[in-house]
Amino acid sequence: MSRKIIFSGMRPTGPLHIGHLSVVQNWAARQDEYECYYAVVDWHALTTGFDDNIPLRDLVRAITLDWLSVGLDPEKCSIFVQSAVKEHAELHLLFSMFTPLSWLERIPTYKDQIQQLGWEGKDLHMYGFLGYPLLQAADILVYRAEAVPVGEDQLPHIEFCREVARRFNNLYGPVFPEPQALIGKVPLLPGTDGRKMSKSYHNAIAIAAPTAEIEAQTRRMVTDPARVRKNDPGHPEVCVAHKFHKIYSAERIEELKDDCRGGRVGCTDCKKNLAAAIDRVLAPYRERRAYWEAGGRITEVLAAGQDKARTAAAKTLEIVRAAMGL
Amino acid sequence: MSRKIIFSGMRPTGPLHIGHLSVVQNWAARQDEYECYYAVVDWHALTTGFDDNIPLRDLVRAITLDWLSVGLDPEKCSIFVQSAVKEHAELHLLFSMFTPLSWLERIPTYKDQIQQLGWEGKDLHMYGFLGYPLLQAADILVYRAEAVPVGEDQLPHIEFCREVARRFNNLYGPVFPEPQALIGKVPLLPGTDGRKMSKSYHNAIAIAAPTAEIEAQTRRMVTDPARVRKNDPGHPEVCVAHKFHKIYSAERIEELKDDCRGGRVGCTDCKKNLAAAIDRVLAPYRERRAYWEAGGRITEVLAAGQDKARTAAAKTLEIVRAAMGL
Repeated sequence: MSRKIIFSGMRPTGPLHIGHLSVVQNWAARQDEYECYYAVVDWHALTTGFDDNIPLRDLVRAITLDWLSVGLDPEKCSIFVQSAVKEHAELHLLFSMFTPLSWLERIPTYKDQIQQLGWEGKDLHMYGFLGYPLLQAADILVYRAEAVPVGEDQLPHIEFCREVARRFNNLYGPVFPEPQALIGKVPLLPGTDGRKMSKSYHNAIAIAAPTAEIEAQTRRMVTDPARVRKNDPGHPEVCVAHKFHKIYSAERIEELKDDCRGGRVGCTDCKKNLAAAIDRVLAPYRERRAYWEAGGRITEVLAAGQDKARTAAAKTLEIVRAAMGL
Repeated sequence: MSRKIIFSGMRPTGPLHIGHLSVVQNWAARQDEYECYYAVVDWHALTTGFDDNIPLRDLVRAITLDWLSVGLDPEKCSIFVQSAVKEHAELHLLFSMFTPLSWLERIPTYKDQIQQLGWEGKDLHMYGFLGYPLLQAADILVYRAEAVPVGEDQLPHIEFCREVARRFNNLYGPVFPEPQALIGKVPLLPGTDGRKMSKSYHNAIAIAAPTAEIEAQTRRMVTDPARVRKNDPGHPEVCVAHKFHKIYSAERIEELKDDCRGGRVGCTDCKKNLAAAIDRVLAPYRERRAYWEAGGRITEVLAAGQDKARTAAAKTLEIVRAAMGL
């Protein structure tokens, strides 16, 4: 019962690919040590996608299945959907009362994203978009989480969350911890074509990809363009496949580099080896996926996770309401 | 079941005085004709008072007792506390996703109040203060209310609420009515000293005031300063007591005017008559108050009202979530 509490969440934006893998692996690695709350944050998907007609229910099930297949264990952690725990909305509203607009306006991602999505023709000057870091703060603090596994780009949001916690504690008494970021190592994997890995570029390998798809995507990877014949010396530092080998063949990466530079292994064989290495990692996930896919298991997992999350969140809100005199 | 639905709310700011009376009387007058939801909007009290250490729980009970004493009937309408129905917060959050910041920024009360309370040393540049008309819109629309009894100053908020309803309906399908304002006649009563009636000026007559207090406050009323002797001709148009007579002695107002102008009734007697007239209105309220004060009756009223409100709100949110794909 005295384990430290962790919260983290992901938007349901589509099937996860191997670029996301390390994040979920990191989550799974914490579940013995910490009391973990992992949420599919569907309300957050609406902050940028309110008019996109997103099939949220399907995406929620898909991402939950991805998580379970990678090894999140519903016996050990709470897996749930944000919108099923209304206390997130209540705490967000209560926090809004004392959160200066300027705090939200100066979070770097706010103006960045307004601009970036503006280029794509999307107007994000919405009340909810301005407030989404506050909703994140509520997501975290509603469990009185002490740590949040995040990527480095999320650091300003965690700092903001700490400010909100401090301000609440100053106004109403010590209720919230100031959560720390747990920065996980996230190796930046490019897509098979060298651009950013993204489902919409068709250059991603899904976590759920069967062997044949892994092989096809790997074959497509851009290698050293200067290498025309099989035994020409290669330049692993410019090769997309090599970036994947660094992660999936880490134990013999020096050997692979030497073989490439020495022209001892051709690109086709090298990529076959890579496909096999990726498949060795994903195969057990596929097996686990088959288990969770069956029957109503995902529904059960989410229902149980919601119960645990709600119980914890309701306890926090009781303390919050008493502190605020409500 | 096909009665039109009404929502209205009041912030719990302290005991009601007779300046508020017509609003509550208006509410009571609707309860046979409409399905009425009347809420003590405690979350709204936090938008301007988050750091005021308001004893909200006490104020909630006090205002509920005022309402009941004036004649709101818990058998006929739902009387409840906003913060007990979490769906208000959920709908507010969902609305926030598609509500442009500019809509909120251009509501006239926003800048007015920022300025006015700024003079009192209060910084209201808070996320929640900017969003409070959106919370009002959620308060109203969570019951799919078609009408809102309000004062004229609230018209821009109702117009904003209609805009929010329209935008939702355009984005996700026809779920919400566009509520109409039911403007009640609110006679502007000054305080006994001629300034605005306000508890903090000690110039107000509380709805709960006993006879002796009504008499004392009435005696203090400013009358025609040009009238020195009892039988000097008076000028009712400059007399504070006369403004009250217009409401509390409406049936014989012409007679009173003539008697004053003709110097036939002195100010002291005229105000004694006024005190008696006010007391005739408030006496039955005091009696009813005594009934509701007893035992745990207020707690029961609020619990029953919450149940009815929650049931209705939960039904709306189910439709909303389905429409938004959640």
